[in-house]
Amino acid sequence: MKVTIIGTGLIGGSMAIALKEMNLAQHITGVDCNKVYAEKAIALGLVDVIRPLEEALDADLIILAVPVDVAENMLPLIMNLISNQVVMDVGSLKKSLLDVVAHEANRGRFVATHPMWGTEYSGPDAAVSGAFIGKAVVICEKEQSDDDALLLVENIYRAFGMKIQYMNAIEHDLHVAYVSHISHITSFALANTVLEKEKEEDKIFSLASGGFESTVRLAKSNPDMWVPIFMQNRENVLDVLNEHISQLKKFKSCLEKENNVYLEALIKNANSISKIIK
Amino acid sequence: MKVTIIGTGLIGGSMAIALKEMNLAQHITGVDCNKVYAEKAIALGLVDVIRPLEEALDADLIILAVPVDVAENMLPLIMNLISNQVVMDVGSLKKSLLDVVAHEANRGRFVATHPMWGTEYSGPDAAVSGAFIGKAVVICEKEQSDDDALLLVENIYRAFGMKIQYMNAIEHDLHVAYVSHISHITSFALANTVLEKEKEEDKIFSLASGGFESTVRLAKSNPDMWVPIFMQNRENVLDVLNEHISQLKKFKSCLEKENNVYLEALIKNANSISKIIK
Repeated sequence: MKVTIIGTGLIGGSMAIALKEMNLAQHITGVDCNKVYAEKAIALGLVDVIRPLEEALDADLIILAVPVDVAENMLPLIMNLISNQVVMDVGSLKKSLLDVVAHEANRGRFVATHPMWGTEYSGPDAAVSGAFIGKAVVICEKEQSDDDALLLVENIYRAFGMKIQYMNAIEHDLHVAYVSHISHITSFALANTVLEKEKEEDKIFSLASGGFESTVRLAKSNPDMWVPIFMQNRENVLDVLNEHISQLKKFKSCLEKENNVYLEALIKNANSISKIIK
Repeated sequence: MKVTIIGTGLIGGSMAIALKEMNLAQHITGVDCNKVYAEKAIALGLVDVIRPLEEALDADLIILAVPVDVAENMLPLIMNLISNQVVMDVGSLKKSLLDVVAHEANRGRFVATHPMWGTEYSGPDAAVSGAFIGKAVVICEKEQSDDDALLLVENIYRAFGMKIQYMNAIEHDLHVAYVSHISHITSFALANTVLEKEKEEDKIFSLASGGFESTVRLAKSNPDMWVPIFMQNRENVLDVLNEHISQLKKFKSCLEKENNVYLEALIKNANSISKIIK
């Protein structure tokens, strides 16, 4: 199979590695408007060749792996240039993108997906082998995709070792606000909190240990990816963020009122997250 | 050397393992008012024998590894029962405990320490080998400890592979509010945020991936340890928590006003945490 990957960063690059390792792609064309990324993708052997978008669509499968705002602009363009190819995206939000292609004549060639894997790093250098094994992947509005297009994409994800879930786009975008977007906001805000303090206290980070690293790790994530996500999903993210601020205020109130009993109850409730996260 | 460890949980148990592995302790007596923990500590081979406190103080070194509120009650009792033994604690806060022993006749036998390592798990089962290697440890008010007592404790931590830092207790308690306590509060509150939503949405956690796990991991931490820490350090924790809430409100404001430029600036500022956390 010939594959074109548009966006040779963390996800596109890791998919290139997986496609080659599973022997699913015999030839991979890369498209990247970032010249440094394009050169790195070649140098790292992620893709076989780099081409401009218009010359890269003669593949069996086209994977769109760019930030959600860029994807929204590019997808209609791509849909107008393809005939029978399969197009899939791997973006973090689904509603807006699916609205954009809803009335395209060849809508059926498109499969909307979101593999639930990522790291705080970006670019071809961040691509890794084995990224997707055992992780969840969401396919949205599968009934709008042609059977053969859907099957091709499902088979690839199964070969990657992923657990496929089907959802509508609205449900997906709400869920990711809870299990991904709010974690990123808390992590960015936590980093800014301690960096603010660092101005006064030089030695503050000499004590940083595993717990701190774990909660601020996501704060290294790339704004080019996350600003569009937060803005596109702003209503869901605002709902969760308001709930999170009110949960933090409960802790604040316990401390202010020295209410040990309620503080213990809040922590015990939080402990039940271990039902979910082993 | 004969060592007595009071509190055979995560830290006490991991110190027992390290002391035996480094051949620093030939015999370890455990003290634990929790009978289940005491039996497990024996069964796991962490300690050689379990004894009541009053019969366990005939050791060269006594390590107090209990929650900070319990430590405050026990330390004066221990100081009154010892003669020339060295006593050290490993608690997360230092000011209050040091105030408690400040006027003890044999204050010099006590060394106040805080090894900057922990996990979200507790009890003897949670104790692990190699816990302290490469981590920081703070020794507070070292000038109040006898030279031989300080040297013994320093040599143990050096043998564990730890990097020793010296601070006064006030400075220590402020720093840990930033690099440890706030991370735990955000994690507890994040868990409560998503658990609140889970009541409505069954499938929410089926998508939880690495980023979410990383930010809520600490929410599994034990309230018996953390309620006393937050309460004892409440003024510092409240300062940081107020700052954190105001940082979160900046993100909220960006979303409400669709201010992409400021949102990007907030994220770029947060990215500079990578100077500190590799």
